[in-house]
Amino acid sequence: MVSGPMLQKPLEELNRCTQSDFVAALANIFEYSPWVAEQAFAARPFAGVNALFAAMKTAVERGSKDQRLALIKSHPDLANKTQRAAGLTAESTAEQNSIGLDRLSDAEYEAFERVNNAYRGKFGFPYIVCVRRHTKDSVLADFERRLPNDAATETATSIAEICRIAALRLDQLVASSDRLAVHGRLSTHVLDNHNGKPAGGIAVELIERSLKGESRVVARAVTNSDGRTDQPLIGGRPVPIGRYELNFSVGRYFRERNVPLSEPPFLDDIALRFAVSEPEGHLHVPLLVTPWSYATYRGS
Amino acid sequence: MVSGPMLQKPLEELNRCTQSDFVAALANIFEYSPWVAEQAFAARPFAGVNALFAAMKTAVERGSKDQRLALIKSHPDLANKTQRAAGLTAESTAEQNSIGLDRLSDAEYEAFERVNNAYRGKFGFPYIVCVRRHTKDSVLADFERRLPNDAATETATSIAEICRIAALRLDQLVASSDRLAVHGRLSTHVLDNHNGKPAGGIAVELIERSLKGESRVVARAVTNSDGRTDQPLIGGRPVPIGRYELNFSVGRYFRERNVPLSEPPFLDDIALRFAVSEPEGHLHVPLLVTPWSYATYRGS
Amino acid sequence: MVSGPMLQKPLEELNRCTQSDFVAALANIFEYSPWVAEQAFAARPFAGVNALFAAMKTAVERGSKDQRLALIKSHPDLANKTQRAAGLTAESTAEQNSIGLDRLSDAEYEAFERVNNAYRGKFGFPYIVCVRRHTKDSVLADFERRLPNDAATETATSIAEICRIAALRLDQLVASSDRLAVHGRLSTHVLDNHNGKPAGGIAVELIERSLKGESRVVARAVTNSDGRTDQPLIGGRPVPIGRYELNFSVGRYFRERNVPLSEPPFLDDIALRFAVSEPEGHLHVPLLVTPWSYATYRGS
Amino acid sequence: MVSGPMLQKPLEELNRCTQSDFVAALANIFEYSPWVAEQAFAARPFAGVNALFAAMKTAVERGSKDQRLALIKSHPDLANKTQRAAGLTAESTAEQNSIGLDRLSDAEYEAFERVNNAYRGKFGFPYIVCVRRHTKDSVLADFERRLPNDAATETATSIAEICRIAALRLDQLVASSDRLAVHGRLSTHVLDNHNGKPAGGIAVELIERSLKGESRVVARAVTNSDGRTDQPLIGGRPVPIGRYELNFSVGRYFRERNVPLSEPPFLDDIALRFAVSEPEGHLHVPLLVTPWSYATYRGS
Repeated sequence: MVSGPMLQKPLEELNRCTQSDFVAALANIFEYSPWVAEQAFAARPFAGVNALFAAMKTAVERGSKDQRLALIKSHPDLANKTQRAAGLTAESTAEQNSIGLDRLSDAEYEAFERVNNAYRGKFGFPYIVCVRRHTKDSVLADFERRLPNDAATETATSIAEICRIAALRLDQLVASSDRLAVHGRLSTHVLDNHNGKPAGGIAVELIERSLKGESRVVARAVTNSDGRTDQPLIGGRPVPIGRYELNFSVGRYFRERNVPLSEPPFLDDIALRFAVSEPEGHLHVPLLVTPWSYATYRGS
Repeated sequence: MVSGPMLQKPLEELNRCTQSDFVAALANIFEYSPWVAEQAFAARPFAGVNALFAAMKTAVERGSKDQRLALIKSHPDLANKTQRAAGLTAESTAEQNSIGLDRLSDAEYEAFERVNNAYRGKFGFPYIVCVRRHTKDSVLADFERRLPNDAATETATSIAEICRIAALRLDQLVASSDRLAVHGRLSTHVLDNHNGKPAGGIAVELIERSLKGESRVVARAVTNSDGRTDQPLIGGRPVPIGRYELNFSVGRYFRERNVPLSEPPFLDDIALRFAVSEPEGHLHVPLLVTPWSYATYRGS
Repeated sequence: MVSGPMLQKPLEELNRCTQSDFVAALANIFEYSPWVAEQAFAARPFAGVNALFAAMKTAVERGSKDQRLALIKSHPDLANKTQRAAGLTAESTAEQNSIGLDRLSDAEYEAFERVNNAYRGKFGFPYIVCVRRHTKDSVLADFERRLPNDAATETATSIAEICRIAALRLDQLVASSDRLAVHGRLSTHVLDNHNGKPAGGIAVELIERSLKGESRVVARAVTNSDGRTDQPLIGGRPVPIGRYELNFSVGRYFRERNVPLSEPPFLDDIALRFAVSEPEGHLHVPLLVTPWSYATYRGS
Repeated sequence: MVSGPMLQKPLEELNRCTQSDFVAALANIFEYSPWVAEQAFAARPFAGVNALFAAMKTAVERGSKDQRLALIKSHPDLANKTQRAAGLTAESTAEQNSIGLDRLSDAEYEAFERVNNAYRGKFGFPYIVCVRRHTKDSVLADFERRLPNDAATETATSIAEICRIAALRLDQLVASSDRLAVHGRLSTHVLDNHNGKPAGGIAVELIERSLKGESRVVARAVTNSDGRTDQPLIGGRPVPIGRYELNFSVGRYFRERNVPLSEPPFLDDIALRFAVSEPEGHLHVPLLVTPWSYATYRGS
């Protein structure tokens, strides 16, 4: 489920190379804004990627008001067909695609167009959000929350979102012994309370539920002998804010173990619906189950 | 949700009236087979509706093999457009409509036509099932189970299903101090384990889930101060064999009570999926819930 | 577990009899204070026992300050050996015995003597509490809470407790079509989530737990085929404020049903510990159990 | 809770030293039976402690019937005062003390004396059991199960128990990169379903329950911010077969967090009773709790 990192640059290399190579490598961590890397260069060498990111963030904070506004305006609209046709940075393209902004229905395109226009009309700069932390639904909810804000609030919020985007780009680009705290985890496990042991061999589906668009399966796994999945359902990246459903094929599990069941079985496919609100958090959603009862809870 | 009984005939009236009135009243309890009522008449007076039904069932059992076969053949096909156009008994029409056989999609009509033809082709009589005890899906599953049987088994099964149909018709027709055991019950309640009390004011939906066709809402209710619904979700009739989902709006419930929640709330709409296998049983499917956990079980 | 009512007097008789018979019958509803009944007599006839109790309560409230103080002082100390030897009203004796004040250990006697002396020393009148709503522990906790109060508060509290005592005495004495709301209920049921049905035949013990003295079994029952006890564990009287433990022999239950268990069984005797704080409430403490898991909650 | 290992001997040292040093070091792994080490010496060098133990076990298996009987007879009685006064091996003393055989009541001494005499009277050799895998109650239960056996069965069982004793002695004596599979683990964690997070700061007690003698606290801990205890309640050794109770102070936990509670709190000290049947297994007994409900299950 984890998108593989592109070829990463070791931090030591960035600590040793020329300034122009350093800036070239980090030019798009902040969209079209190599000046951030130029400023951060002075703080070399960096003990780790956290120190590097802190230096870049400081550069943004110490930049002039105009520089920060220009940084904001360097960003593309979300899901804007015209801009996409004209070409985005590779980073922006990958980010927008990650939540499916390249595969919108016409109605969704229109919804995003309304969002962009309303926001740009009010503030004079594009609506920016770190899409890797979101689902389509939560982007639209975020927009609805932010549109009523005043310009100062939205300038600050935009910079904060840009820093989140930058942290994720840096995390993908740079190999270091330390890690930026930008990854979350979503996991599950199934406990068979009928037999008093972990339930292995249960097919699990993770569905991203959309209230406004289409739901889609985002992970599939089968539980192992510990009743867990070998990999977290989502890991090595933020867990997008949104609504989810976990599906467990428990009817088949008990039938294969010759447990006496009614026909149709009282419990067959169990759906646990829940929401993610902290993309960098560790969320554990277990299932405790017998053929006649089940329970879940927010674990960690 | 319970279809109101038509005007009922008091049992005492049936105990006192002429034979021809008696037979006229009960002529269609067994489809187009007044001879059953004629035979049962001799056993008057009846202490209750159970005694009356027993007498009619005995008449069927004592009937000749040909009579029983004729009884079977008196029944219409399920969901047969031509037969419906030509006219069914009022009872058959109401029964078939109760599970939506009058509102089938083209694909469903074809599925039923295949069923009818395959069955009639093998056995020489129509496929009969007591549809008030079923959903569309469970009728098709029942057919799949029965088609491989031999003729003797299917003759017996058809008579058993006809008796179930008759019992439900008699239950609707006759008012008596005793009741036939033909009604089931499906109920729920919601317990708020965050506050340690029943959860009142929760919107509940009961959905009949179809694996092959469309799911549909079959009951809506709001929990009262006991955390229960004022009426059972299904009661006063068999609970159709099938797959169901109960939906509970718990996010709104906790938000209205100012319980601190994440955004989106970890739990919002909870879906409990389960199956009914005993139409005449009492099935209780409760929800024990906090903003961070829930549980359910098969209660009674 | 429910102490049988003594021979009750029909309300109609009290509505019709002479004033002196009326007063004689109700003389000790309020301890040694027939004047309360005398005052209430004027309000005859009473539509029900609630109306009669309201009239008596009104008489107390309209009494002079001196009368109310005399009423308070008419009450005996709790667990006072000397007074018991000299003789209490039958009502006081029965009430004190109901929570075991006639069977105190020496240490407990001393504890109660300290309570009585400290309270009487501060306020000049005895410490009064409606003991039928309490366990020994909760009486001592109540005393600790009340001793720091001022005299006005304690006078009001004493009258309130006296009215509770009176309501319970009236409830036992008078037969009426309505009932005073003085009874609570404590019940349980056991659901076998391994087999998906109520657990019948489980031995249940209700233990009153004391932090300061000895715990004691106050009810024993066996669950019926509904998984419930035929009678509530406590009913027809207040459920004494206090700490309890319910014990369920689930190991034997599953062993007798040939469920595969470890040796010793993972779960054998399950103890649910809980407290009662509302003697007139309905408290339901169920057990949901498999050989490998269990759950309970405060139901109603 | 874990008794610290005595100064351990590195396996490499045993692989290199003289035969007499080798035998001296391992002389009492099998009680008073240096011949086992002598036999195993030939298999040097050992890749790990598992290989060493396998070689010693093979030596026992290849020993003559008389040697094995002598090995059995080398063992002391359990809890025999006279033998203890005369002196046991240091290993036997530590093992017997570990389950309190040095602190028996008179009644318990008599119980063990009866056991020893009955067993020795029937079989002509002492009753041997690996006491580190047991509680006093489970030793007596084991004895009751084994006494009816025939001599061949008990000879084999004794050798098997002697090998378990030897494995634990070897595990304590020898440092190696691999480990013998002789350790179990008992752990817990507390999840606060009222607040949707791990419950830190909860005082936990583990009590070894005796049906025949006295119960005793065998571990105390406080949950950390993960709702777990920093160390397993029992770890680094077998978890003795027996009956246990976990106590959790949840009333104080919720009170300190200002959660509205009744008085006394509905839940205060929660007792989870369970049994251990697999000393080398990993047993996890969690508590899921709100102020009004709780659940537990056998986890792993």
